[in-house]
Amino acid sequence: MVVVLKPNIPKEKRNELIREIEAMGVKVQITEGTQTSILGLVGDTSNLNKYRIASNEIVANILRVQEPFKKANKMFKPDNTIIEVAGRRIGEGYFTVITGPCSVESEEQIEGIAKAVKTNGAAFLRGGAYKPRTSPYSFQGLGLEGLEYLKIAREKTGLPIVSEIMSPDLVQRFVEDVDIIQVGARNMQNFVLLKELGKTNKPILLKRGLSATIEEWLMSAEYIMSEGNEQVILCERGIRTFETYTRNTLDLSSVLSIKKLSHLPVIVDPSHATGHSWMVEAMTKAAVVVGADGVIVEVHNNPAHALCDGSQSITPEQFSGLMDKIKKLVEIEGKVLVE
Amino acid sequence: MVVVLKPNIPKEKRNELIREIEAMGVKVQITEGTQTSILGLVGDTSNLNKYRIASNEIVANILRVQEPFKKANKMFKPDNTIIEVAGRRIGEGYFTVITGPCSVESEEQIEGIAKAVKTNGAAFLRGGAYKPRTSPYSFQGLGLEGLEYLKIAREKTGLPIVSEIMSPDLVQRFVEDVDIIQVGARNMQNFVLLKELGKTNKPILLKRGLSATIEEWLMSAEYIMSEGNEQVILCERGIRTFETYTRNTLDLSSVLSIKKLSHLPVIVDPSHATGHSWMVEAMTKAAVVVGADGVIVEVHNNPAHALCDGSQSITPEQFSGLMDKIKKLVEIEGKVLVE
Amino acid sequence: MVVVLKPNIPKEKRNELIREIEAMGVKVQITEGTQTSILGLVGDTSNLNKYRIASNEIVANILRVQEPFKKANKMFKPDNTIIEVAGRRIGEGYFTVITGPCSVESEEQIEGIAKAVKTNGAAFLRGGAYKPRTSPYSFQGLGLEGLEYLKIAREKTGLPIVSEIMSPDLVQRFVEDVDIIQVGARNMQNFVLLKELGKTNKPILLKRGLSATIEEWLMSAEYIMSEGNEQVILCERGIRTFETYTRNTLDLSSVLSIKKLSHLPVIVDPSHATGHSWMVEAMTKAAVVVGADGVIVEVHNNPAHALCDGSQSITPEQFSGLMDKIKKLVEIEGKVLVE
Amino acid sequence: MVVVLKPNIPKEKRNELIREIEAMGVKVQITEGTQTSILGLVGDTSNLNKYRIASNEIVANILRVQEPFKKANKMFKPDNTIIEVAGRRIGEGYFTVITGPCSVESEEQIEGIAKAVKTNGAAFLRGGAYKPRTSPYSFQGLGLEGLEYLKIAREKTGLPIVSEIMSPDLVQRFVEDVDIIQVGARNMQNFVLLKELGKTNKPILLKRGLSATIEEWLMSAEYIMSEGNEQVILCERGIRTFETYTRNTLDLSSVLSIKKLSHLPVIVDPSHATGHSWMVEAMTKAAVVVGADGVIVEVHNNPAHALCDGSQSITPEQFSGLMDKIKKLVEIEGKVLVE
Repeated sequence: MVVVLKPNIPKEKRNELIREIEAMGVKVQITEGTQTSILGLVGDTSNLNKYRIASNEIVANILRVQEPFKKANKMFKPDNTIIEVAGRRIGEGYFTVITGPCSVESEEQIEGIAKAVKTNGAAFLRGGAYKPRTSPYSFQGLGLEGLEYLKIAREKTGLPIVSEIMSPDLVQRFVEDVDIIQVGARNMQNFVLLKELGKTNKPILLKRGLSATIEEWLMSAEYIMSEGNEQVILCERGIRTFETYTRNTLDLSSVLSIKKLSHLPVIVDPSHATGHSWMVEAMTKAAVVVGADGVIVEVHNNPAHALCDGSQSITPEQFSGLMDKIKKLVEIEGKVLVE
Repeated sequence: MVVVLKPNIPKEKRNELIREIEAMGVKVQITEGTQTSILGLVGDTSNLNKYRIASNEIVANILRVQEPFKKANKMFKPDNTIIEVAGRRIGEGYFTVITGPCSVESEEQIEGIAKAVKTNGAAFLRGGAYKPRTSPYSFQGLGLEGLEYLKIAREKTGLPIVSEIMSPDLVQRFVEDVDIIQVGARNMQNFVLLKELGKTNKPILLKRGLSATIEEWLMSAEYIMSEGNEQVILCERGIRTFETYTRNTLDLSSVLSIKKLSHLPVIVDPSHATGHSWMVEAMTKAAVVVGADGVIVEVHNNPAHALCDGSQSITPEQFSGLMDKIKKLVEIEGKVLVE
Repeated sequence: MVVVLKPNIPKEKRNELIREIEAMGVKVQITEGTQTSILGLVGDTSNLNKYRIASNEIVANILRVQEPFKKANKMFKPDNTIIEVAGRRIGEGYFTVITGPCSVESEEQIEGIAKAVKTNGAAFLRGGAYKPRTSPYSFQGLGLEGLEYLKIAREKTGLPIVSEIMSPDLVQRFVEDVDIIQVGARNMQNFVLLKELGKTNKPILLKRGLSATIEEWLMSAEYIMSEGNEQVILCERGIRTFETYTRNTLDLSSVLSIKKLSHLPVIVDPSHATGHSWMVEAMTKAAVVVGADGVIVEVHNNPAHALCDGSQSITPEQFSGLMDKIKKLVEIEGKVLVE
Repeated sequence: MVVVLKPNIPKEKRNELIREIEAMGVKVQITEGTQTSILGLVGDTSNLNKYRIASNEIVANILRVQEPFKKANKMFKPDNTIIEVAGRRIGEGYFTVITGPCSVESEEQIEGIAKAVKTNGAAFLRGGAYKPRTSPYSFQGLGLEGLEYLKIAREKTGLPIVSEIMSPDLVQRFVEDVDIIQVGARNMQNFVLLKELGKTNKPILLKRGLSATIEEWLMSAEYIMSEGNEQVILCERGIRTFETYTRNTLDLSSVLSIKKLSHLPVIVDPSHATGHSWMVEAMTKAAVVVGADGVIVEVHNNPAHALCDGSQSITPEQFSGLMDKIKKLVEIEGKVLVE
């Protein structure tokens, strides 16, 4: 950490601040500039009370040198994490396709979709039992009934299942029922939920919040990891910007940022990011070549009658075509397509 | 709702769509333009499956005519809602000052601050017992112990208390212990929590999410209200923008937007919005003259040693000066300063 | 255009508004809803004074049905525009690589880079003679001298040249000297400049403004086209968002939006968008598979000593490796790599 | 400037970098941390090639200690600049109201408005002769004819005039004709124009760009000032955010940021920021109490028939009411209302 002082500070005031900082357990080295001095703080600064230092009247600015995340940090664990779920891998060297409808609507629906996507090479089945909706008057999901239908679909197809959790009291149930627990964008900073999930040993699919920086996203992963669960899969799903032609703006460069900063796997959700089914194929292809470890794509048997997010879902037929494109690019990338 | 068709659609296709829409329970009126036709949907369109219509291949666009919020909508309840808590009012015609430290740190601390702000005319005491922090390694609040200290401070000063809730399982406890339950920006779309709070009869202070539109914010209020609890106080606390000189960008015009669209009270949090204690006074004054129903301002006995958000807290002395400024402006606005 | 009225408006007031609108030369069709009426405006609404209608006290909202751009609109020209420059094509079916240093620094430098990138398959040489810099104290480019060096490099390699213009008084000079005139992001709404360029017959490379919507970007193209010059190439170069890890956020979905809305070619600039040379390869690959018609990539012989934007430039060696990747993907896409 | 090195760098590599940096004319002081070392650069770092250092492979990050603006910097000129135009002051201690229509439409219109606002206490008349419009098909202003009408209005009322310039070739004409030259938001980084204006001795009203940071805005002022013209008035006019209920988001805290960082006057434009005439009064009041040195408010004799921006213009009657509110607040602020 670097503390920049205001210009022309008397030495005694400066020394007083240095004593105060050193009392927090770090060493201070001074660089005297022509106008300002800067203090370099040496030692473990991660628990330092930055605000206390910042509110000192002689301090102009505080510049952080180290990232605040530890367990998620590639610097402390250079080998990329590969997560194994039901014999399928997610992480460096693999490309994993997760797919299914936004929401589980009936036993027949989810079973039908599961069979169709299984045939076409999907590795995981995703379906929403609990749906976070902007409006209280929109369909909120089938709840536990939806989870049951997902389990039946898993039994019939062998596809492991992914579903979104919305509150801490359902953690135990999700641990028992699903193979990967999804945390949605709106809950990325639901810290109580993250801590509870950190106490489980289930892989967690952590979506990026609508206005979360790369660092905040990794700090949310850190919440889960700091409780003991290091199986976190990050998912870029678009950020909120001024542009309204797409639902959100898919930030594909975030895949590269995450790969640089962290050892955790990162996948991409082109369906929620764009909100347009006709954009899904192209953005999925981009996700492959940019280096994502997988995608999560919405497929619905009848998008026009979907109870949620129909306009961004592709049909099983379109999914089949998409898989052909994915296969070619995954091969060029020298990766293994997970089946 | 208005459905815009693509150009040059054959009549039979159009009629097919009209039949499909009318089967959903609304009437359709056609406006034939020179290039495109538009369909006006008459009746209750709030439960209509918009995605189903949007994914029809002949539809170019869907334009919404009505706001999706009902109970929060000024159109259906023109009289402004005034919420009464422990004999103090929040709403049109009043100006209410809520204040206190970001987090409760000890019994002495919260009691000391409570007495100081009470003397200077605060109407409510706010203190965080549970703190949502970006980092799992930051101070997370005293929890239930913090709530106890708040209750002691209330007993000694008579100030009703406001505190933030972070998970649904604590709703009953908060209902018993505090006077207003705060929902933080990061939980604005924690719908499970909102629904639980909607089943209580406590006033809820609902902060705007970092990237929430005015409409999404009101829809979150609607979540609470649709469950039966209509005592919602909105709180503008800055939105996330590209500008980094301030912590967030305080959107004061949102106060005006809310007043236009809704009957609910709206207050302003200048401390979290700016992140700078030296900006608090000016932005509070702006909140008064722009028409906010109150402010929530962070006060700490010793900002330099605060366990959280010290750089944005003002001292009790500064608060005293601030109250003098507030009083003058509230008077000019012809409002009653709540004590 | 659709005009939504406020609820419960007396018929006579409504009829008065209708008369006023019809006096502007369009026809009005009424759809009476349960609460509000909407007026559908039939005819050419592009010159209508929307503000005049919006400021009528009985109007709640105005919803636009048609896009405001005409010459750039795919609806009116379904065939994609292919622009030919010095025997090289830019547009559907082709992939064109433009490359070179951020700024021309000397005759040797630009000639050296030109030869290196020519060998590796670049189709165009780009170099900045005039540089828009945030700081007046930064290197501002060599000006006309830079243009001369570019011409020498063109002569020696045969590569047509692209360079950025910053003011209307240099239009004639640029028309004589360069093959494609670039308009930078900061000048995307420099309408005086756009109009002047519209009077020439040179292809214009129009970069997206940092906070320009898709529509505003196309409207800037429209400025050029409405003056007679229809040779506009759009260039996505990242938008400003809250994320600061990358210089800007590359919005690759905008390529798809443009392809849907317009017939104009669109290319991608991964160098300026990300600001990181190590991100350029991956983002370029993504641009290819997403359907862009080309890329503009910064190459510098010695990035560490570049006078501008060194941290985002790749070396000629890295460019060579990048071209190998591009070739494979362009082939898979079934396009022709322009040489 | 502080250079942060990557962890575990061999000493010889580090020393090589230090030699390279010192060859640029600054001294380097080392702070060795437990994991990384940081280099403090002492001396004049403003002309240092930051990119060259950043692209060195052992550098992790570069942190800037000083602001890059000099002439606009309060640190180097603590006394606030007060600009005097035709006997009227703009700056600390004064509050100046500039007003008039978005565009000059006819001699009668501008004269009528000028007389009305003069009566009500406006200090300056603003009117657009050249209008930057998103669409080439919208009214573009009367041009030189508009300037002539403005001059007539000035002659008849004594109000000095403010008008927007759009291209460098008109600088001389504007210097002769108007009292303050306005640079619009879209031209905030039209550096050629800024430099030309820097060579004049006319006060420049520099609007903040739609997505300009505080620093970029001050750097644009620096462009003007570095050429010799230090009479720059900054104008906050709203920034582009995700919120669409208002045209832009008025960032009132920017007034405070500017006051902290710079000695230049700063005023507020509530009309363009909000886009709603009914928001103008409240936001103007907020501008006064937040400490702005003035406002620029759109007034139109007949907003419903305005050729541009009618929905955000207030009538002369509303302006009269607004001035009453302004007067009261300016008095409370202890400032002089400029007449």
